[in-house]
Amino acid sequence: MPGSGAEPPRDEVLSEPLRDISRVVAALAAGDFRRQVTTRVDGELGALKDDVNALGARLAALTGEVHRLSGEVTVEGRLGGRVDLVDAEGGWRTLVDSVDGMVAGLADQVRDLSRVAQAVARGDLSQKIDVSARGEILELKSTINTMVDQLSGFAAEVTRVAREV
Amino acid sequence: MPGSGAEPPRDEVLSEPLRDISRVVAALAAGDFRRQVTTRVDGELGALKDDVNALGARLAALTGEVHRLSGEVTVEGRLGGRVDLVDAEGGWRTLVDSVDGMVAGLADQVRDLSRVAQAVARGDLSQKIDVSARGEILELKSTINTMVDQLSGFAAEVTRVAREV
Repeated sequence: MPGSGAEPPRDEVLSEPLRDISRVVAALAAGDFRRQVTTRVDGELGALKDDVNALGARLAALTGEVHRLSGEVTVEGRLGGRVDLVDAEGGWRTLVDSVDGMVAGLADQVRDLSRVAQAVARGDLSQKIDVSARGEILELKSTINTMVDQLSGFAAEVTRVAREV
Repeated sequence: MPGSGAEPPRDEVLSEPLRDISRVVAALAAGDFRRQVTTRVDGELGALKDDVNALGARLAALTGEVHRLSGEVTVEGRLGGRVDLVDAEGGWRTLVDSVDGMVAGLADQVRDLSRVAQAVARGDLSQKIDVSARGEILELKSTINTMVDQLSGFAAEVTRVAREV
């Protein structure tokens, strides 16, 4: 249409190496992160191949790391782990930091709970949970702190009665 | 080299639409998940463009979801969330399930701890932590169960002494 200003869409027939690159991009989009472009190509096409392979390798590495960390936390009960993804920038950094922050935050809560429970178990009722918390974790924190208060009150009462007797 | 059987690498000069696709793939590999191919293309090149854009959209959606969930857990203390990524298969499914499993596993532990602490706070010393645990979480579980045992023993002793008096 004259005057529309829009060019018609380009309809290129791809070369065989580009078809290979295309197939790998489609596989990555569908969740098959192990696929890599193996066709030998140089120049601009070589740069595209390298970027597609770097993208796939990064996705595979991220998936492996998050899966490993999840197993550490849920199967082994280890809370100190982090996602190890070298040179993660931009969105990759956001992904890594989000997962690491989630695990580290929950680990802090669990460790703080542990500290208070250990103190109570050895008869020290002076400890309170002091990690900042909200929502469901705040409820747990309040419950444990209330429990410590109740026990303190009970201990004081027992001491008072024992003295009177 | 004759007889080596290896073909020389292909060195293609890319068309402008393919250069655009290439730039977006490079951006995704570098962590800029907001970039999309906007050049109008049809046919095989159009399919490549769609796959690159689908890959970018999926990476952006995953990053947004993991970031949102991490904030829910660490900032709001909400433990019931999950990664919402439609039609996640293959590696995408592994990523989603790993993150969800990690959050759900830790949420189960925290809720079980909460249940026992609530019971102790209202004077019921019959509750124990029964979620299966290992590692650091097992230590916490053992500590809390030991605390409950100590309190039970103390309560029994107080009752015995009170009766004797």
